[in-house]
Amino acid sequence: MCTAATYKTKDFYFGRTLDYEFSYGDEITITPRNYPFHFRHSDKAPDSHYAIIGMAHVAGDYPLYYDAINEKGLGMAGLNFVGNAVYAEPVSDKENVAQFEFIPWILSQCATLKEARQRLSTMNLTNTQFSENFPCAQLHWILADASGCLVIESMQDGLHIYENPVGVLTNNPPFPQQMFQLNNYQSLSPRQPENTFAPGLELQSYSRGMGALGLPGDLSSASRFAKVAFTKMNSRSGDSELESVSQFFHILGSVDQQRGCCEVAKGKYEITLYTSCCNTTKGIYYYTTYENHQINAVDMHRENLDTTVLIRYPVLAKQNICFQN
Amino acid sequence: MCTAATYKTKDFYFGRTLDYEFSYGDEITITPRNYPFHFRHSDKAPDSHYAIIGMAHVAGDYPLYYDAINEKGLGMAGLNFVGNAVYAEPVSDKENVAQFEFIPWILSQCATLKEARQRLSTMNLTNTQFSENFPCAQLHWILADASGCLVIESMQDGLHIYENPVGVLTNNPPFPQQMFQLNNYQSLSPRQPENTFAPGLELQSYSRGMGALGLPGDLSSASRFAKVAFTKMNSRSGDSELESVSQFFHILGSVDQQRGCCEVAKGKYEITLYTSCCNTTKGIYYYTTYENHQINAVDMHRENLDTTVLIRYPVLAKQNICFQN
Amino acid sequence: MCTAATYKTKDFYFGRTLDYEFSYGDEITITPRNYPFHFRHSDKAPDSHYAIIGMAHVAGDYPLYYDAINEKGLGMAGLNFVGNAVYAEPVSDKENVAQFEFIPWILSQCATLKEARQRLSTMNLTNTQFSENFPCAQLHWILADASGCLVIESMQDGLHIYENPVGVLTNNPPFPQQMFQLNNYQSLSPRQPENTFAPGLELQSYSRGMGALGLPGDLSSASRFAKVAFTKMNSRSGDSELESVSQFFHILGSVDQQRGCCEVAKGKYEITLYTSCCNTTKGIYYYTTYENHQINAVDMHRENLDTTVLIRYPVLAKQNICFQN
Amino acid sequence: MCTAATYKTKDFYFGRTLDYEFSYGDEITITPRNYPFHFRHSDKAPDSHYAIIGMAHVAGDYPLYYDAINEKGLGMAGLNFVGNAVYAEPVSDKENVAQFEFIPWILSQCATLKEARQRLSTMNLTNTQFSENFPCAQLHWILADASGCLVIESMQDGLHIYENPVGVLTNNPPFPQQMFQLNNYQSLSPRQPENTFAPGLELQSYSRGMGALGLPGDLSSASRFAKVAFTKMNSRSGDSELESVSQFFHILGSVDQQRGCCEVAKGKYEITLYTSCCNTTKGIYYYTTYENHQINAVDMHRENLDTTVLIRYPVLAKQNICFQN
Repeated sequence: MCTAATYKTKDFYFGRTLDYEFSYGDEITITPRNYPFHFRHSDKAPDSHYAIIGMAHVAGDYPLYYDAINEKGLGMAGLNFVGNAVYAEPVSDKENVAQFEFIPWILSQCATLKEARQRLSTMNLTNTQFSENFPCAQLHWILADASGCLVIESMQDGLHIYENPVGVLTNNPPFPQQMFQLNNYQSLSPRQPENTFAPGLELQSYSRGMGALGLPGDLSSASRFAKVAFTKMNSRSGDSELESVSQFFHILGSVDQQRGCCEVAKGKYEITLYTSCCNTTKGIYYYTTYENHQINAVDMHRENLDTTVLIRYPVLAKQNICFQN
Repeated sequence: MCTAATYKTKDFYFGRTLDYEFSYGDEITITPRNYPFHFRHSDKAPDSHYAIIGMAHVAGDYPLYYDAINEKGLGMAGLNFVGNAVYAEPVSDKENVAQFEFIPWILSQCATLKEARQRLSTMNLTNTQFSENFPCAQLHWILADASGCLVIESMQDGLHIYENPVGVLTNNPPFPQQMFQLNNYQSLSPRQPENTFAPGLELQSYSRGMGALGLPGDLSSASRFAKVAFTKMNSRSGDSELESVSQFFHILGSVDQQRGCCEVAKGKYEITLYTSCCNTTKGIYYYTTYENHQINAVDMHRENLDTTVLIRYPVLAKQNICFQN
Repeated sequence: MCTAATYKTKDFYFGRTLDYEFSYGDEITITPRNYPFHFRHSDKAPDSHYAIIGMAHVAGDYPLYYDAINEKGLGMAGLNFVGNAVYAEPVSDKENVAQFEFIPWILSQCATLKEARQRLSTMNLTNTQFSENFPCAQLHWILADASGCLVIESMQDGLHIYENPVGVLTNNPPFPQQMFQLNNYQSLSPRQPENTFAPGLELQSYSRGMGALGLPGDLSSASRFAKVAFTKMNSRSGDSELESVSQFFHILGSVDQQRGCCEVAKGKYEITLYTSCCNTTKGIYYYTTYENHQINAVDMHRENLDTTVLIRYPVLAKQNICFQN
Repeated sequence: MCTAATYKTKDFYFGRTLDYEFSYGDEITITPRNYPFHFRHSDKAPDSHYAIIGMAHVAGDYPLYYDAINEKGLGMAGLNFVGNAVYAEPVSDKENVAQFEFIPWILSQCATLKEARQRLSTMNLTNTQFSENFPCAQLHWILADASGCLVIESMQDGLHIYENPVGVLTNNPPFPQQMFQLNNYQSLSPRQPENTFAPGLELQSYSRGMGALGLPGDLSSASRFAKVAFTKMNSRSGDSELESVSQFFHILGSVDQQRGCCEVAKGKYEITLYTSCCNTTKGIYYYTTYENHQINAVDMHRENLDTTVLIRYPVLAKQNICFQN
């Protein structure tokens, strides 16, 4: 399915993998400040808003973002939440927000997680479809800036907003259960284990890395949650841009889905279609794809953000190998 | 520590990760056909031999290979085997081969795994040091071509040569034990599990990828063996060069060591310094490094292989990001 | 902590382990039909009620039952639910039931699970203490007869009543999470595994019983839930009284807590103080203790049940060994 | 299959479970000092020897012991070792011992483990059959007294004698591999875990007993080895006879095989047929059976041990319930 993570060095990084068996056709898409967002349940589009960069499927000039950041440093991503996501009917006493426009609605208006918390408390996430042909994706969301991280889950029993002290998200089960499972892994460590099984018995650490024995390595969402949480929480890197970005791709690489290892139908395999890493401070969107290991990037601040039209870059999906001879 | 793997599509691929807390200084090194190999226990160097390309620490013009292939399609890599590797004293009735020259000794002389099997049966792997300052590394070896794969382990009880039906290798424990452990993982699958726990009880596969629940995800050598074996044995890709190479890096990426997750001394972390993938058919050496996700490559056939001097390329360790704007 | 289970052959069996580091002093206690139950929030005791047999700490002639059955075949047990149990304040529009009298309140009045369901739907479980010196135990309950099984959990967000298709209960986390975790064990089986890891690779089942590899064996409540659920759901036995009772003790024996394996404070160890098995059809209470492996029994129908005074039998805690010579 | 264990308090205890899908018909059998042991490859029976008590299938007045102790405090048991056990042909330069008489050969002649070590060093364990109808069972052996414990494995590559610091044995794989696997469990503990996963992250020990999370609970021989080793090494009990014996049955109870959980053929289930516990100091053989939870006992010193004829007691297999009313 998918995995999202945050990472903080000097700047704040936010990104995700998108795991699926095919792509809907995505582009790195910048929504400039004057692009008119006609939110479904609003009377009029705001005159101006924060610029956004992220990965989107553009449908009829509308950016259906999978993950994005705004120019203020706030990032947001939607991840599959199949079987658990339930959206509300529009109501009259709250601000109704269609599920498909949730990411731009937040990122265009909120400069910080604090502002977003405020907006979330008064909104109603609705099951309004983008169009007849686009049923609502069953998603939950991770929302973060340098100050913290939230998870938003709309379920049968209402809209849940959780503080996320780990800064990672995958898919099912709901976030509180994912966090609860970490209790079971609490004794894992990057350091070698000590013999508490039978003190005095001669046991040996025959390999490095034995302190994390018990960490799962399969591709299910609960196992990816534990694996990426351990990797992220123990990550160490320099704080330069290159070191930070590199480390971020290693964090999400820990839950990479290899073609063949997750068969979703006869001969169909879920893979990590792309992995993104946004420097939320600098407004740069980095990504790799399954077939292109080189990191590509689009910098929102190299564009004129005071325009009205989406700025779109194709995903560079072809492996770019550097031959030294 | 390290992980090695093989992969076969139209061509045959062979590579490894090198995991450690620092680098000795490595170069992609081509040994041309007329480079004089003065093997320690031989009277004279052969006039000519097979050309070799691989990653080596070059010490005094001598290529101490970590992993390499020859122009005939045979590949070989040495991986840490600390606590188990024991080399023999030179003897008079066998062909003595110093441990440090084992890779070039095989690759310079054997065109195929079959020929290598023959040479292995009559040789004696010795504890002869490269120099006073270079004690013998404690290693075991993986040796493969398109026809099959061997593991060679020199231990207290002698030299063991094992057929390797999985085509992967990590570190401790010895190879037969690693293979034995796969018995415990036999019910894992890329497909969703069926409920055999309590037929009739309503259980659900709440996530994709649950068929491999139980696969380990920590960085110890036994866990990496299981994880990479599962990933390799279930890998699916197109058979073009780009698809094959990409898939290979995904296979070894499944056991990537992230900085911080394996602390070997206070503040010192083992990481995947580099990952290699050789097209043994075409003689191309591909690699990435921890800080450079782009795949770099050196093609031995773009060089004059009929010379006498090592051809050396630096490791491109700096991240090469492709900015699209 | 504790484990409860149900088992059905010709008759219906219900029992539990009580795991703790010391005993409060328990007796097998029969409450006859005319024992006056002055329920705390009721105006008067019913004239008569169903007789009950179970393990109780008798405080001032009041039977504080840990687990019990009534003469109609309904059984109920309270198990630790520390950190999750929250009881309500008494309210005016519901039937208030003090937590400490919950078991007799149900068992004295309900002949069947169906009747109990009805009573549960209109009651309010309160935090009323038995006395100043007896704070409310933090418990959840299993309630079962031959027709089915319920779990009752009173938490911060109210009273939850769950159908329990497995018929087992341990402690934390709440029951829905325990059930959810069984999804992760669904591929376990009493039969030998098949090689789906890498079909074609020669893997062997080197031992019997490998189909359940992955089943946990530690003494934590989540692990005991999975272990006892697997054991119960796969249990096979003859349906005679002796065979059924024997099998039942084997089921709960699978999660026996051995002294030394669960240290709760320096030198203090939680152990399985006693294990019970009630034939709910026949009204017989069987039990063993940590130090007495022989099965002891008290049969409620060998007593005059139409009396007013508790009938109490001591726990036979001393090992009764049968010497054959 | 089977599990054996030792336990030391004031006295030394030795016992085993015998797990199988049917019984060959066993009796608690005392071999008195003057019973004539005509060992197959010896010219004559010794005039006298140490008396032995244990569980045996008596075939034509010959005690085929499964497990036994002698009057000097030495105990020995044979456990299934299918696929690994290989016995030698008789040779002329060693003392040949038929596999079926291995237990009496040792126990009748050796007072201590030290003496046994000596005899083992000069013997040859042969594939001599007891009779045409009794092919050699594929076994390995545990041999222990209060001073220590050995494992004896006769394999393709010869007879192996291992010191056993844990004092437990199950079945496959060979003992060194079983011991090696304990390295993977070294961080398990009877105490609650500490959060080393992500110090600072609020994780909770929501249940007692979480320090041993990762301990396996299935019935395969490798899992039983780890489970019983943990249980035995952490066992605590008083040192009286009753407390010691009770604790011993709890230790082996931790790997009890319940009917239904290990299906060996359609509708056939391996169960723990009996569990034994010998006080090697006092010469008492205690046991329980699958259907009889009471501990039965035979005391060798209540017999005249200076006779020539086997003294046999039937296994009391019928549940003996103590009704208190």
